[in-house]
Amino acid sequence: MLLGPGDDAAVLAAPDRRVVVTTDLLLEGRHFRRDWSSGYEIGRKAAAQNLSDIMAMGATPTGLFVGLGMPADTTVEWLDALSDGFRDECALVGAGVAGGDIAKSDTIVLGVTALGDLGGIAPVTRSGASPGDQVAVAGRLGHAAAGLALLSAGAVSDAFAELLLAHRRPEPPYEQGPRAAALRATAMVDVSDGLVQDLGHVAAASGVAVILDPGGFPVSAPLADAARQVGADPLDWILTGGDDHALAAAFPPEVRLPPPWRVVGAVAAGHGVQVKGRAEAPGGWDHFRG
Amino acid sequence: MLLGPGDDAAVLAAPDRRVVVTTDLLLEGRHFRRDWSSGYEIGRKAAAQNLSDIMAMGATPTGLFVGLGMPADTTVEWLDALSDGFRDECALVGAGVAGGDIAKSDTIVLGVTALGDLGGIAPVTRSGASPGDQVAVAGRLGHAAAGLALLSAGAVSDAFAELLLAHRRPEPPYEQGPRAAALRATAMVDVSDGLVQDLGHVAAASGVAVILDPGGFPVSAPLADAARQVGADPLDWILTGGDDHALAAAFPPEVRLPPPWRVVGAVAAGHGVQVKGRAEAPGGWDHFRG
Repeated sequence: MLLGPGDDAAVLAAPDRRVVVTTDLLLEGRHFRRDWSSGYEIGRKAAAQNLSDIMAMGATPTGLFVGLGMPADTTVEWLDALSDGFRDECALVGAGVAGGDIAKSDTIVLGVTALGDLGGIAPVTRSGASPGDQVAVAGRLGHAAAGLALLSAGAVSDAFAELLLAHRRPEPPYEQGPRAAALRATAMVDVSDGLVQDLGHVAAASGVAVILDPGGFPVSAPLADAARQVGADPLDWILTGGDDHALAAAFPPEVRLPPPWRVVGAVAAGHGVQVKGRAEAPGGWDHFRG
Repeated sequence: MLLGPGDDAAVLAAPDRRVVVTTDLLLEGRHFRRDWSSGYEIGRKAAAQNLSDIMAMGATPTGLFVGLGMPADTTVEWLDALSDGFRDECALVGAGVAGGDIAKSDTIVLGVTALGDLGGIAPVTRSGASPGDQVAVAGRLGHAAAGLALLSAGAVSDAFAELLLAHRRPEPPYEQGPRAAALRATAMVDVSDGLVQDLGHVAAASGVAVILDPGGFPVSAPLADAARQVGADPLDWILTGGDDHALAAAFPPEVRLPPPWRVVGAVAAGHGVQVKGRAEAPGGWDHFRG
């Protein structure tokens, strides 16, 4: 950060002569609830989803900008916790909040923008996947969706602490973004709306089909337990749940992928996303419908 | 724009190896009303206030990012008009909308971020003013405040068309930002909250006082007429009215300022902003109070 908050605008270093930019709007009641998540958790999650978008391009975050709308009776404690959440999540990737804006609002509104630097590499877009590529995933899938389902069902218990926390505070596999670029990923996406939907964007942008193998998705014990508790199919959460901010990428077939990358399918000629053994691809989280 | 909307993030050129960034949150009912401004005007104004912040650093805008929250019943016509407004205002400075996000919301929410390039110069901050500098302004002052007062009073008539339009669609003197930098401005600020308040930021950041001469503010005929109509003091609008996005800057005393720059005061030792002949500096628009 060359010039921080307190002027008309901030100045950030952009050593690569290109800057990667993403923006998200997070609204109370739609994207988070203050009775389900603390200010700290909301700050971490809001930062996480933007930082993850930067790293899904193969870039490294350089700064975050936060427009905050809030009711007049918002407590200083809540604001401090929100700010701490942003700070701690940014610190995971060596970035910080470099500027922002504040306004009075009836509910909490967060307009978050993240910037990143490509360090000389080509951005990994959604459009470079080719038939024959392997499709792989890094990070959790379905955990945040399970946590949300448990909260919605009022099934909050210590037995599900990990899943509840996954909803409140995603743990994107940040460093795997630039690492996938180094492993010659041909296309990459941040799984924010659900694996099938987000890979659908890759399929459409690349003009290919993505074939997923359900055998590539082992169901963890907590996920199986939670699914039984609320009467859901854990594979639905894995395939269509958003908010975990895993990374999904296509790689040339000859690339040997190190952990935590795990192969979950392949790219083929055609279009759309198919899940072997399922008649129809399930939907995902629709931003606007939500 | 190297990579536009449709991926996890966009990629913009940053030839200077530094990037200037500003973000604003605009909320329906607080910052605009749909019954007072068209979608087109709201788009132009939202773009204008961010582009103006970039140019107040002496930089040139390179791209705008828009997070849009909107009710499900928002019409396509309104959205198209909003989008046209963003496009047309950005076109004035050779930039465009490079990315964004969309969410469902009870009211219209706009989270706008603008990026800019410094082209090799040092950013003109708020902190460089020295005693002896002249203080000058480019652009309109008080017009938007007069328009807002007329709308609030229900005094809408063709006689005040110019002032009403000034509220709905500011016309920042964009090119004067980089030009002031070339004229060796020592400090500069975008007048968004009111001249006295915004110069107060310059005084505080620079550790100086700013002395304004009311003789530097001729009251135009429409402004005088509007003030009579609603029983206001036109000088109050000029000194404290926000939203015109004029530029105010300090320059070394020897710089001969070309139009449209007009000298309105001087920098002195001390602190705060004083208006000659007025006992107390009037306040400005307080973002949070508003």
